[in-house]
Amino acid sequence: MASSIGNNQENTGKPIKCKAAICKKAGQPLVIEEVELDPPQAWEVRIKILCTSLCHSDVTIWKMDSGPVAKFPRIFGHEAVGIVESVGEHVEEFKERDLVVPVFLANCGECIDCKSPKSNICSKFEDRFNYNMPRDGSSRFRDMKGEAIEHFLGVSSFSEYTVVDVTQVVKVSHDLPVDKACLLSCGVATGVGAAWKVADVEEGSTVAIFGLGAVGLAVAVGAKQRGASKIIGVDLNHEKFDIGKRFGVTDFVNPSTCKEKSVSEVIKEITNGGADYCFECIGLASLMAEAFNSCREGWGKTVILGVEMHGSPLTLSPYGIIRGKTVTGSLFGGLKPKYDIPILAEKYLNKELSLEGFITHEVGFEDINKAFDYLLEGKSLRCIIRMDH
Amino acid sequence: MASSIGNNQENTGKPIKCKAAICKKAGQPLVIEEVELDPPQAWEVRIKILCTSLCHSDVTIWKMDSGPVAKFPRIFGHEAVGIVESVGEHVEEFKERDLVVPVFLANCGECIDCKSPKSNICSKFEDRFNYNMPRDGSSRFRDMKGEAIEHFLGVSSFSEYTVVDVTQVVKVSHDLPVDKACLLSCGVATGVGAAWKVADVEEGSTVAIFGLGAVGLAVAVGAKQRGASKIIGVDLNHEKFDIGKRFGVTDFVNPSTCKEKSVSEVIKEITNGGADYCFECIGLASLMAEAFNSCREGWGKTVILGVEMHGSPLTLSPYGIIRGKTVTGSLFGGLKPKYDIPILAEKYLNKELSLEGFITHEVGFEDINKAFDYLLEGKSLRCIIRMDH
Repeated sequence: MASSIGNNQENTGKPIKCKAAICKKAGQPLVIEEVELDPPQAWEVRIKILCTSLCHSDVTIWKMDSGPVAKFPRIFGHEAVGIVESVGEHVEEFKERDLVVPVFLANCGECIDCKSPKSNICSKFEDRFNYNMPRDGSSRFRDMKGEAIEHFLGVSSFSEYTVVDVTQVVKVSHDLPVDKACLLSCGVATGVGAAWKVADVEEGSTVAIFGLGAVGLAVAVGAKQRGASKIIGVDLNHEKFDIGKRFGVTDFVNPSTCKEKSVSEVIKEITNGGADYCFECIGLASLMAEAFNSCREGWGKTVILGVEMHGSPLTLSPYGIIRGKTVTGSLFGGLKPKYDIPILAEKYLNKELSLEGFITHEVGFEDINKAFDYLLEGKSLRCIIRMDH
Repeated sequence: MASSIGNNQENTGKPIKCKAAICKKAGQPLVIEEVELDPPQAWEVRIKILCTSLCHSDVTIWKMDSGPVAKFPRIFGHEAVGIVESVGEHVEEFKERDLVVPVFLANCGECIDCKSPKSNICSKFEDRFNYNMPRDGSSRFRDMKGEAIEHFLGVSSFSEYTVVDVTQVVKVSHDLPVDKACLLSCGVATGVGAAWKVADVEEGSTVAIFGLGAVGLAVAVGAKQRGASKIIGVDLNHEKFDIGKRFGVTDFVNPSTCKEKSVSEVIKEITNGGADYCFECIGLASLMAEAFNSCREGWGKTVILGVEMHGSPLTLSPYGIIRGKTVTGSLFGGLKPKYDIPILAEKYLNKELSLEGFITHEVGFEDINKAFDYLLEGKSLRCIIRMDH
């Protein structure tokens, strides 16, 4: 087992053995077992994971027992930070011991999308549900019988070591605390990016956030930093109001207590006609429609961040649209990983971006299933899973 | 009957008699009869119509025989140009003999929307289906028995004279030919505005236009002027390709001849992945969805200009939205009437905006029903109806 730090020269170019948390069946607790991990091939980086955390997208796919994305055995995890252990051929961007954040979204830097300021959906390496290595769809993980184990989103960070394509790795400053770096790998960056880059929330504007998980609260942080005058949180869990206040939420709407009025009617009252910006952070088409209804005519913008979890279509009133409402959305908050994660890191280090409060729990790797429990029970925002090599 | 020009002092402050084309029943030919028109009240302008034209919105409501907007007898018409005959109390913006364009969209200049660069939906005088005078909902027209006749969109330009609220009147230069001024009153301005202001089409971008009526062709004119590399027209009438070419359309898709591929698949092939901008100019939810499907991921923007004619909801894939697609829309192409119509007029006079080709027919007021025939048969883009006082 590769228990040493970073550049253990003797392992370079060779498979290593390490522990990984394997999901053998949908919805089942992960099992920590020894696996064999190939060396990085060309344009790949082998990363020693320092810490990782559980995101709702892991849970959504973990639950799926059928369909094209239900593949097992699999190593989940896509929100993480680690140290480069070794690099494959042609890799010039990274060297051993670099502190890196792996991300689910590729950023090749060369395609028309990566070169455009308007897109962050790399068109050369878009996922298309190919969750293994993006260049050939193969796996780098094997179990002790030699059977391949599926990757997840090209990251698979629930392992002491993983191999990630260079397009999905971002170098960050060693000054960045590793747990904060982990937050920038997915959820928190998504929320802040949505507020800053997709919506471009401006001073004095009104914001409604549907779903106060880590992504929604990160939207609140971003909106507060921009000087939004009202930040309305919508959540079924009434405890989220007190939690939300710490992140900038000023008003709270609990759909379960809206008896005579719809959520959008309540928001229209609070905002005198509708919010300037609404963010859907859950992934329910019905909630997306309610967010749209909660936006003001003229310029109201609804930003969809949640991946619709039941495959339902989104149904909107065309009348609202021609009266000036906009619906848009993004993966990863519209951020270009290689360009924007270092910017967010710098803003954190300069105290222009608060990342406090998101980490509610911390467990050792051996207790990774507790992270699932905390998230499923709605207790945690982010549970940091420390690899403790 | 007030047959003299502009400032016929003897009529000022008094009702006048004039001829108007009245719709007595949904879908029936208009009947030209003498009506009595009140003098302009406070913040109102009485306009001598020089010419008017028929827009699809007139036809849509003209056909409706039930529902809150089906009101008869009514004087239709909202695309026009005229001369100020007299003004009511508190009117300082206009004086007799001013050349003016009445518009269906109010622009008070004082509300939060009028003051914002982001909206053109005046929130003080928004229509809310109140098609008579906006301040009190009353009519200024009466038939010879003294019965009130309904206005349409606060304009009612199918009359020799009409009374319009100051918020819906725009002064233009006397240098502007009256038939061209008429085009800026609604349809053509809507298309150009959508390309320039809502989509902000840039050089080299690809554009797909669903519906090549006057609005759609005006989108083409706006997109061509901005240097779009491909302008794809979608229309069931194959003659529209040759017509479209004159306005800048470079490619044509006829849905009725798309056998093995959907329209969006054809457009994705032509544009190598999807158009940068799609415009729906008909008002059919199914076509809006097809426009959305025809847009590229990453930054594709669908602009909805058509008012959905069957009250159908718009159904979209949330998956396309989180992959960076945007849906937006506008009334009047996002233009603020008082600010933007003079700009379009100036661009026309400076030869920066072509308004040629939109006027395909011209009739005298007595033949106004021919304008309906031409539009219903798909023969005309715009038929100018000259009042010939």
